[in-house]
This record gives sequence, structure tokens and C-alpha cells, in this order.
Amino acid sequence: MLREPVTSVVSPETGGMSGNTGRYEKRLSDLAGLYEDAAAHQALVEKLADPVVYDVEDFRPGNHSGDLIYGVTRMNPGRVGREFFLTRGHIHAKADRPEIYYGQKGHGLMQLESPDGETRIVEIGPQTICYVPPFWIHRSINVGDEDLVMVFAYPSDSGQDYGIIEASNGMRHRVVAKDGGGWALIDNPAYKPRRPETVVALMKQYA
Amino acid sequence: MLREPVTSVVSPETGGMSGNTGRYEKRLSDLAGLYEDAAAHQALVEKLADPVVYDVEDFRPGNHSGDLIYGVTRMNPGRVGREFFLTRGHIHAKADRPEIYYGQKGHGLMQLESPDGETRIVEIGPQTICYVPPFWIHRSINVGDEDLVMVFAYPSDSGQDYGIIEASNGMRHRVVAKDGGGWALIDNPAYKPRRPETVVALMKQYA
Repeated sequence: MLREPVTSVVSPETGGMSGNTGRYEKRLSDLAGLYEDAAAHQALVEKLADPVVYDVEDFRPGNHSGDLIYGVTRMNPGRVGREFFLTRGHIHAKADRPEIYYGQKGHGLMQLESPDGETRIVEIGPQTICYVPPFWIHRSINVGDEDLVMVFAYPSDSGQDYGIIEASNGMRHRVVAKDGGGWALIDNPAYKPRRPETVVALMKQYA
Repeated sequence: MLREPVTSVVSPETGGMSGNTGRYEKRLSDLAGLYEDAAAHQALVEKLADPVVYDVEDFRPGNHSGDLIYGVTRMNPGRVGREFFLTRGHIHAKADRPEIYYGQKGHGLMQLESPDGETRIVEIGPQTICYVPPFWIHRSINVGDEDLVMVFAYPSDSGQDYGIIEASNGMRHRVVAKDGGGWALIDNPAYKPRRPETVVALMKQYA
């Protein structure tokens, strides 16, 4: 079926996008379970009256294989204890699907974790593209003092699997603020590595 | 196979991109046959010593289905008679593959033509995304006074078919400069519509 071309105008300032077919937002309470300091998280939800942490506006043409979804994500700056505001993180339900992020404003990190537990960090500022190859779990983190705004695109049939992070008690590393500024990686002591057969099953495509 | 994440930094000013795996450029002589005034085209090639009209830097992860190619294209401003500098134009060899363009600098048009000869024009400035849905032939045109720079992304297995435009003696319409500024669409009198069975064959996917 022939569909009409679409025009979207991105606002790097507000993180908005015209021509979108959908919008959703995540509040601080939606991030329960992600932080090492659960009490600090709960206290902040109450203190700030459960603020929006990030929102997404996207255009979804459908879920045809070979088609593309694109959009804009905007994340507030903020901290929970020594950790930063971040997204839940996911691997694609079709794990061989990649994603492209393109920084528009602010200073963020993409935290990537391979099925067998390797961590990579990509720093994202304005005009930085981060290519998340197939099979990498990924989460974005706002380590700056202003909104983090990124444009993204990924295959329409990718899907999102958020359970993979929960199943391993979080990602292998945590990103924490360093005294005096900047960030560092520390081990997540609760992390449960995926079993070799789980890794093989995830990566059976592309073999 | 697990591949490493990639970081690319885009320069909207120069149209360059770090982290690229390839680069190509097209010179004015490569655009032979595209303009209504072939003599003006040939004279300009000689006068300007066959300048580069556009260049592309891209990152290609391979040609796996479901993966994505991305890059940056930069096009000089210029005219051939009353027509503008433009790309050859193509439909994807897998015609059901879309493409996303994101304006970074300058003022351009995306000229789209459906298999059955419908024309659409999308104006692209900085921060404008143009989504080219499956099945549309598309060409970009620099109608401004400065470089046109766009980021793009499309599925790795798309391929490009440039012959489709040649087979119909060009696109159905031409974009020409209007006296006093701006642009207009005019008919291309040499245009040969595609036959209904050609249209059906092109659009057999997604049926």
C-alpha cells in the first residue's frame, strides 16, 4: 500500500516533534527498581510529586519488516542518590535489530551491554550519532545539567524487551556521579550473568 | 556476530561525519542526461572544470536484513539553466524499503514520485525530517543559496535502482527556478509513464 510522505520538524530545545503518531512519558515512579538506593528513589518521588523524567514523540508507520520508526526523546537532568536519571533500557524483541541515536542537546551516555555481559559507554552530545548494533542491551543516561534530547530511528519490527534487564537484576555496571563532577562505572553486585545457552539463543539470528 | 558500537560526529557546516566506512562524490558530469538543457549542462561542466556537486559519507554495517546504514550528504548550491543542482534519484532495489532524511543546513526539496506517477514535494530545512515511505522514487534538490546538508538512514538491504528514472525519461515533473526567487513544478514532456503491470510488480511486496 502506498503511503504519503511525512514531514516532521524537531525542536532540539523542547524535545518535541511535529508529524508524530504517538507520545508517551515516564515518571520517576516508573523507574522503581532501577536504582541502588530504593529509599532515596521513593523519597524523591514524594518530594518532587512524581515528576516526568523523560518523554518520547515518535512516528510509527506500522510494523512492517524493513520499515522504520523515528522520533525524539527528551530527558530531564536529575539524580537519585549518586546515580543519574536514566531510561529503563531494553534489548530489541527481535534482538538482531539495531538503533541509531543522534544527539541534539545536552550531554548523555548510552550504556550498552552485550548478552554475555560486556559493557560499553558512548558519550553523546549535540551532533553525535551513536549506532547501537544488533544484540546490545541499551539505556540512555542524562549526565549533564540540562535536558538530553536525541533523535532516534530503528526498524519497525524491532519490538522492545525490558524484562532482560530485570532478569539479571539490572545491568552489570552502574554509572555514578564522581565527587567534583563527571561519572564513573562501578560494579552492580546484584548482577546475575546470563547463562551461556541464553546468550546463544539471543544471538541465534545472524549466526 | 557481535559488533562494536560506533560513534560518529556530524559536522552540519562541512557535511562531514567521523566513523564513516565509506565516502563518494558526484561531479557535474555525472549528472549528464538529467537536465532539460543538455547544452547548458555541458557548457557548465567545461566552464567550472567539472566540479563536485555532492558528496556522501556513510557508515555501512553490512547488508543484513533489519540492519541500518546511516550517513551525511552535502550538496553545493548551483543551477543548470533554470534547474537546480540535484541528485540522480533512485527507488530502492527492495522497493518496500523507506528512507529518513534529516535537514542540518541549507534549504532543499525532496522530490518524490510514486510508481504510478504521483509527485510530492517536501521542503527540507534545518531540523526537518522527511520520511520517504516504501515505494517512492526520490531525489534531493538544493534550492537554496548555501550547501544543503542532511543526515540519512535506511535499511542495509535496501539497495538503489537508478535505472527506473532513466527508463521513464526522467521524473514526471521538473523543479525550476521562478523569476524573482522560489521554485515551481513543470511537466517533463519526455516523461513516459510506467505500465500498470510494472507498477504492480514494483509494489508486490506489502500487498
